[in-house]
Amino acid sequence: MLLIRGGTIVDSERTYRADVLCLDERIAAIGHDIDAPLGCQTLDAGGLLIMPGGIDPHTHMEMPFMGSVSSDDFETGTTAGLVGGTTTILDFVIPEVGGSLIDAWHAWASRAEKAVTDYSFHVAITHWNDRVSMEMGRLTQEYGVNSFKHFMAYKGALMVDDGVLMHSISRALELGALCNIHAENGDAVAYLQRDLLARGLTGPESHPQSRPPAVEGEAAQRVIAIAGLLGAPIYIVHVSTKDATDAISRARAQGQRVYGEVLAQHLVIDDSVYETDDWLRKAQHVMSPPFRPKAHQEALWAGLASGQLQTTATDHCCFCAPQKEQGRDDFTKIPNGTPGIEDRMSVLWHHGVRTGRLTPMEFVAITSTNTARIFNIHPRKGSISVGADADLVLWDPDASRTISANTSRQRVDYNVYEGMTVTGLARHVVAGGRLAYVDGDLRARRGQGRYIERPCFSPDFDAIRRRAAFR
Amino acid sequence: MLLIRGGTIVDSERTYRADVLCLDERIAAIGHDIDAPLGCQTLDAGGLLIMPGGIDPHTHMEMPFMGSVSSDDFETGTTAGLVGGTTTILDFVIPEVGGSLIDAWHAWASRAEKAVTDYSFHVAITHWNDRVSMEMGRLTQEYGVNSFKHFMAYKGALMVDDGVLMHSISRALELGALCNIHAENGDAVAYLQRDLLARGLTGPESHPQSRPPAVEGEAAQRVIAIAGLLGAPIYIVHVSTKDATDAISRARAQGQRVYGEVLAQHLVIDDSVYETDDWLRKAQHVMSPPFRPKAHQEALWAGLASGQLQTTATDHCCFCAPQKEQGRDDFTKIPNGTPGIEDRMSVLWHHGVRTGRLTPMEFVAITSTNTARIFNIHPRKGSISVGADADLVLWDPDASRTISANTSRQRVDYNVYEGMTVTGLARHVVAGGRLAYVDGDLRARRGQGRYIERPCFSPDFDAIRRRAAFR
Amino acid sequence: MLLIRGGTIVDSERTYRADVLCLDERIAAIGHDIDAPLGCQTLDAGGLLIMPGGIDPHTHMEMPFMGSVSSDDFETGTTAGLVGGTTTILDFVIPEVGGSLIDAWHAWASRAEKAVTDYSFHVAITHWNDRVSMEMGRLTQEYGVNSFKHFMAYKGALMVDDGVLMHSISRALELGALCNIHAENGDAVAYLQRDLLARGLTGPESHPQSRPPAVEGEAAQRVIAIAGLLGAPIYIVHVSTKDATDAISRARAQGQRVYGEVLAQHLVIDDSVYETDDWLRKAQHVMSPPFRPKAHQEALWAGLASGQLQTTATDHCCFCAPQKEQGRDDFTKIPNGTPGIEDRMSVLWHHGVRTGRLTPMEFVAITSTNTARIFNIHPRKGSISVGADADLVLWDPDASRTISANTSRQRVDYNVYEGMTVTGLARHVVAGGRLAYVDGDLRARRGQGRYIERPCFSPDFDAIRRRAAFR
Amino acid sequence: MLLIRGGTIVDSERTYRADVLCLDERIAAIGHDIDAPLGCQTLDAGGLLIMPGGIDPHTHMEMPFMGSVSSDDFETGTTAGLVGGTTTILDFVIPEVGGSLIDAWHAWASRAEKAVTDYSFHVAITHWNDRVSMEMGRLTQEYGVNSFKHFMAYKGALMVDDGVLMHSISRALELGALCNIHAENGDAVAYLQRDLLARGLTGPESHPQSRPPAVEGEAAQRVIAIAGLLGAPIYIVHVSTKDATDAISRARAQGQRVYGEVLAQHLVIDDSVYETDDWLRKAQHVMSPPFRPKAHQEALWAGLASGQLQTTATDHCCFCAPQKEQGRDDFTKIPNGTPGIEDRMSVLWHHGVRTGRLTPMEFVAITSTNTARIFNIHPRKGSISVGADADLVLWDPDASRTISANTSRQRVDYNVYEGMTVTGLARHVVAGGRLAYVDGDLRARRGQGRYIERPCFSPDFDAIRRRAAFR
Repeated sequence: MLLIRGGTIVDSERTYRADVLCLDERIAAIGHDIDAPLGCQTLDAGGLLIMPGGIDPHTHMEMPFMGSVSSDDFETGTTAGLVGGTTTILDFVIPEVGGSLIDAWHAWASRAEKAVTDYSFHVAITHWNDRVSMEMGRLTQEYGVNSFKHFMAYKGALMVDDGVLMHSISRALELGALCNIHAENGDAVAYLQRDLLARGLTGPESHPQSRPPAVEGEAAQRVIAIAGLLGAPIYIVHVSTKDATDAISRARAQGQRVYGEVLAQHLVIDDSVYETDDWLRKAQHVMSPPFRPKAHQEALWAGLASGQLQTTATDHCCFCAPQKEQGRDDFTKIPNGTPGIEDRMSVLWHHGVRTGRLTPMEFVAITSTNTARIFNIHPRKGSISVGADADLVLWDPDASRTISANTSRQRVDYNVYEGMTVTGLARHVVAGGRLAYVDGDLRARRGQGRYIERPCFSPDFDAIRRRAAFR
Repeated sequence: MLLIRGGTIVDSERTYRADVLCLDERIAAIGHDIDAPLGCQTLDAGGLLIMPGGIDPHTHMEMPFMGSVSSDDFETGTTAGLVGGTTTILDFVIPEVGGSLIDAWHAWASRAEKAVTDYSFHVAITHWNDRVSMEMGRLTQEYGVNSFKHFMAYKGALMVDDGVLMHSISRALELGALCNIHAENGDAVAYLQRDLLARGLTGPESHPQSRPPAVEGEAAQRVIAIAGLLGAPIYIVHVSTKDATDAISRARAQGQRVYGEVLAQHLVIDDSVYETDDWLRKAQHVMSPPFRPKAHQEALWAGLASGQLQTTATDHCCFCAPQKEQGRDDFTKIPNGTPGIEDRMSVLWHHGVRTGRLTPMEFVAITSTNTARIFNIHPRKGSISVGADADLVLWDPDASRTISANTSRQRVDYNVYEGMTVTGLARHVVAGGRLAYVDGDLRARRGQGRYIERPCFSPDFDAIRRRAAFR
Repeated sequence: MLLIRGGTIVDSERTYRADVLCLDERIAAIGHDIDAPLGCQTLDAGGLLIMPGGIDPHTHMEMPFMGSVSSDDFETGTTAGLVGGTTTILDFVIPEVGGSLIDAWHAWASRAEKAVTDYSFHVAITHWNDRVSMEMGRLTQEYGVNSFKHFMAYKGALMVDDGVLMHSISRALELGALCNIHAENGDAVAYLQRDLLARGLTGPESHPQSRPPAVEGEAAQRVIAIAGLLGAPIYIVHVSTKDATDAISRARAQGQRVYGEVLAQHLVIDDSVYETDDWLRKAQHVMSPPFRPKAHQEALWAGLASGQLQTTATDHCCFCAPQKEQGRDDFTKIPNGTPGIEDRMSVLWHHGVRTGRLTPMEFVAITSTNTARIFNIHPRKGSISVGADADLVLWDPDASRTISANTSRQRVDYNVYEGMTVTGLARHVVAGGRLAYVDGDLRARRGQGRYIERPCFSPDFDAIRRRAAFR
Repeated sequence: MLLIRGGTIVDSERTYRADVLCLDERIAAIGHDIDAPLGCQTLDAGGLLIMPGGIDPHTHMEMPFMGSVSSDDFETGTTAGLVGGTTTILDFVIPEVGGSLIDAWHAWASRAEKAVTDYSFHVAITHWNDRVSMEMGRLTQEYGVNSFKHFMAYKGALMVDDGVLMHSISRALELGALCNIHAENGDAVAYLQRDLLARGLTGPESHPQSRPPAVEGEAAQRVIAIAGLLGAPIYIVHVSTKDATDAISRARAQGQRVYGEVLAQHLVIDDSVYETDDWLRKAQHVMSPPFRPKAHQEALWAGLASGQLQTTATDHCCFCAPQKEQGRDDFTKIPNGTPGIEDRMSVLWHHGVRTGRLTPMEFVAITSTNTARIFNIHPRKGSISVGADADLVLWDPDASRTISANTSRQRVDYNVYEGMTVTGLARHVVAGGRLAYVDGDLRARRGQGRYIERPCFSPDFDAIRRRAAFR
């Protein structure tokens, strides 16, 4: 039992002063001057904003990838998220090509048992056959999965072609599940990679050369077209370009239900990171999509402010120096990924709210509420309301900190925001009704995170069904 | 004291089963199986949706206009709104050119005392001088006005030029107030009117000829540019074209805070109404902007669904046949306006939700919540939360009715939706905590409506101030 | 020797009165009151416009396709073109998948020897390997081929994937050749076809359902993105949608060299042709892309008028009733194609020039000059200048005729324009300096057409090379 | 009589080797190995390109403006143009507000008699009444004027409102004349100027602040909308922004005939020129529209390459230091204008052709041919054809020079391109059949320029008339 007193609640719709009483993992009451029940712990939130705990819809903890395994596991990664104000992650189950989706789900579930905060799983579709179709059904009906991921990139590995997309998106629509898309044209990337290597351009600075903005813009509009043909909703992960943002906006302006996610990293870091002689520094910024010319960032911010892009994430996927070294002689062998989960909330507050790009309520919308709604766990998550999970971040909007790998909990040896001073930080965090993090003191423990089942058929689907019938 | 039992609450964010207890004009509690306090009236909402009462941000009750006075007064007009599910209107105080804003406010306030539901006022700016600037200040500080209206049309009458817009929008920004804009190029309209009349084309079918879509699209983008120059938010009333919708979307995609309102009429009625030999029928559809070619409607619906347009209204402004007859020989003398307040909610539910264009939650957003937020009366209005005004519509999503002037409460002798059968209607309405309308039985009375003061500096303004400082 | 007297020359830049003297296949002189050399035949062009003979950049004569062979051969097809005012065709050599490009070139060349007017060949790339790359080189250097065709549709047959496109477009750039693209997403089409058939929707009206506008718009923007990545020019054949037109315009607005071709059929026939119970009539309109909703046509016309689309063609590919019958039980087996070569010029004049969409000079640009320039045979073709090939159409702008299969020379048993009365027709045609068609009297003979070698490295390529070096 | 031998002709359509014979001001013959007639002067053009002399459609010689008179007169200004390769200018007759158009025409005609090269006049419309309408008629019928200029900027001076635009554009359409528009929102500029001055920001760097890109984009789209309402063609002068370019493209994509002109200055100079402490340098760059952020330049170049923008000009309007000093304490008093006529052709060749943005033929199109066509003096101007005026520039594509005021013929004490080394220059110039400039040696003389009458009803108008009738 926990009573939070004297704070200012900020949710996606409004800002108001109220106390919050948490009981048995849930919010039990919200009101003025709530009396502390007997034995109730009290937390003073004076001067703080009480917001729904952040949801990061895109992480890769201890993922086997490109011959390595991402260095943050479910314990260390969720801990890092927690201290930054994130209380739920959506990670990705990635079956082997040809393998069973359900076996893969179990493998991930087993690793995730040590998570400190709540988690759930998207499941990747990397090939197509009857078993995949059947297992998609079982996952939605028995495993609480309501979203499937598809890679249009990584040719020869995870990439699926347009035929698989048609099948899988159609099947998901039938099941009431949402498809996520990594939108980059894998054929084009493979060609450009070969071409760069053939010209002896093997360094990490070739990585962005092999995936220019058009590679993403093209794929985004392609999958939007495909989803449009099927009348299905679609969710595009890590939108990093004006090109893809425009494609999403154009589709939405024709009534299509398309969602876009932005990584905090892309909003504030640009492609100047590749202009250095420091191989490792460049390699540390090898992720896909890569960092972009600065002009793209305003389009992404405006996309979030205008509601054309809805969520923010990190694609948190850490590889330490020895892992990045795998690609010393060939940039295509550098494991792709950057850390980000620990600092997402601060970076977005500092660069989003303090600059006036976003209101505090819009901040809540893009860090938790929209995500919860799109993935159909609202109002359990992403909401401060009676009955909701008591996942709360007590935000100090005026406190500052300087980001550094040295002081990070993420299990990785660098930080893409190294040296950046940000104002706005998580003073305390409540997860599942418990005081999980109190002013620098981590109290949550390994294994306290729960698997969150996500039901199918979010409210979108009823509208989509009606729309199809009407047309 | 009123307890509503067994209904399903739908607000702009979610749908859930709960009881609602109303006490002293406000919502006192929301929860499962609330016990009825002693003496509490109980209303069975089984099978019904409980939604925030509609807000119509654009009405003209008993307005002197074009040599006539609109036929619905504040009593009859708000009554019509009430039975249709609308519990608050925002009407327009329109000073004479050169006249005092405050005097005009008082004139309107006096007429509005007989309102049956709550109301508030936008105040029009029809000229510019120091007194106007000063009175804008007093209206915001002493009269609860936080929005000012500007007409880019009606040359020689209400129209203001770009210089006045610059001054007024700048002053409003300083005061934390939002400017509303009627966006049509008045010079162009005046030219086209003269030209049509000179060619002997004097009938009502010339009305749309004198105000083609480009006349609106032009003005919309112009005032967006002007607001953008000043860093001010802007709200465009009765967006009726793809042209204006696109202009709004383009601006939003660059981070500008632009809002757009759509009339229910424009969403479902097209310019085929002018293709008849029945003079009166055509005259009855003379409004500005006029009805448009059908292709525009999909853009408006998609604008609402995608969040690029935010609110719906009616521009309710009734004139009976003898009034429309004023323009028998000259279409420019036909009083502009159509009724709509009584049927807005049903029409939007039927054509919006039942067709799958909108989810029920999106319906709530565009009929009340967004309006309340934009005009800074949220969560008092547009919300179902403890402490909010107990303005509720108990919606029967499956009941049907056929719209007709004969069965309407609006004080006007026609209905633009005549003969349209719609599914979805207000079964009961609670206004200010009272049962105001119960299954066909009007219980609210003249004068029960209250004037709603609207504070300046909605959350947008803090972001706007930060943004200006940051740039 | 032929002297054309008293006509009005219209080329892509201007209109002026002048005589034209033709000698030995070429234009020998243009001027006022040219004296007829001894023995020179004289043709009175009083009241007629003298324009460059039309060039149809997209025909399929006697093409083996879908188990059939298109019914017009090079003799009958070019004859039909001639009487309609078209004096040059660009046909397509289509190698078997895996087969030799050069062998295929020879096969086509052999069939084409009977052509009545001049012709040249695009060569299709239907797979990728070293031999293809090598043969592309030989074709450009030894065979006068400067353009290669790619199908993004026809999965399992002609379709190439994005990897092949990258390779082939890159190779063509190196060779100074232009790539043509049939832009439809073949994976999506295949999925939709299977789905329609599975639902028992086997009739020709399912054909457009299996290839909606987005299928084309998607592919167009995809190949534009691919060409953009490589810095190569690209030519998209048979643009039939606003979607593809917009994609082209967006790319051009960023400085990319993208060209678009429109079929006369798509400009004037819409998808209402599929709304009939007459199976054959529907089957006769099965072509890819299919006929579109009417709203697309204005975008195509405006694209031509504004210069964003440059050429007009027919995709002339005839199949008679017994051939269309192949698909009686399965629309995917109906041979795709419609006739058009005979009527293109008249249809474009009637619907383009007489309606004011195009000036006569713009008509010349889109029927011949632009095509000649893009495929680098200007000013030999598409121009009225001394030294140019004497291919001239003497156009009667005011004469009318009613189109019918009964009076057509095309060897096919229907005409998509059946019953359409058009004003503007070829009164006489000069081909290679000879009077080939004189007021209804065909004088040209089998085999008089010549193969036109087209050199690589049109002027675009020099600019493209400089641009690449500069960036 | 002049025979030009051994050069390569480049016109807007093609490049070819030929000799050119000039006789009595016109081109008498074009061909291979033309024999020099008796007494014919011969010029060796070996290694040179022979292009149509440049046409600058936008100059202001000895114009009274802002209390000063532009420093280049018709003699010095046309001389500067000549040595740079420009052989025709279109200058502007600017009547006093309320004054006679015809009186103003005579005033300008009298000043222009000393011109060294050919010239013609646009006439400005600065107010509206019956006399203006009548004089527009006389100017078109008796004075060879086919274009009228309108200023949407310069409030309180030259600015006209939308009502005047409607009247004037409509009248011009009737007369077969084309309207030119200076598109900046004058009300907005006036407001921003006042605001900046009130804040003590009086320096030249406030000039661009008072006219941001949206000021131009707004006005461009407004006048396009107005012209669209009337079905009239329109020509927008000095397009300097992506905003205006996009507005033009959107209109053209709907079939509207809109033309756009770009100044060479805007293509290569950006707003960094205002970032200096050197008052005079900043003042020397005060022109309207001002120099823009660099990102706009690519849109302008692509607009030219894609054909959405058609012409290039200079708005040549020189003021020396003492004149610029007028505005020492108030940037709004600095005479607006920059020089440019002397260097336009070299700058466009260097930055346009050598960088691969344009082919040489496109260079000809945008420096002369398109202008001649739009203003209906083609093929007399802008063409190398028999009968055309013998205005030719013999271009050395590989020679370089460094631009400096010290070596310029323009009568002004600075050059906006000071220090820029450009490759590509006019080696010799032929004007009216005479050798006017020979490798640095000026041979043309004061008064040799002729007034060029321009007939109304360019070919566009016939199409426009048909289009209006068809609709």
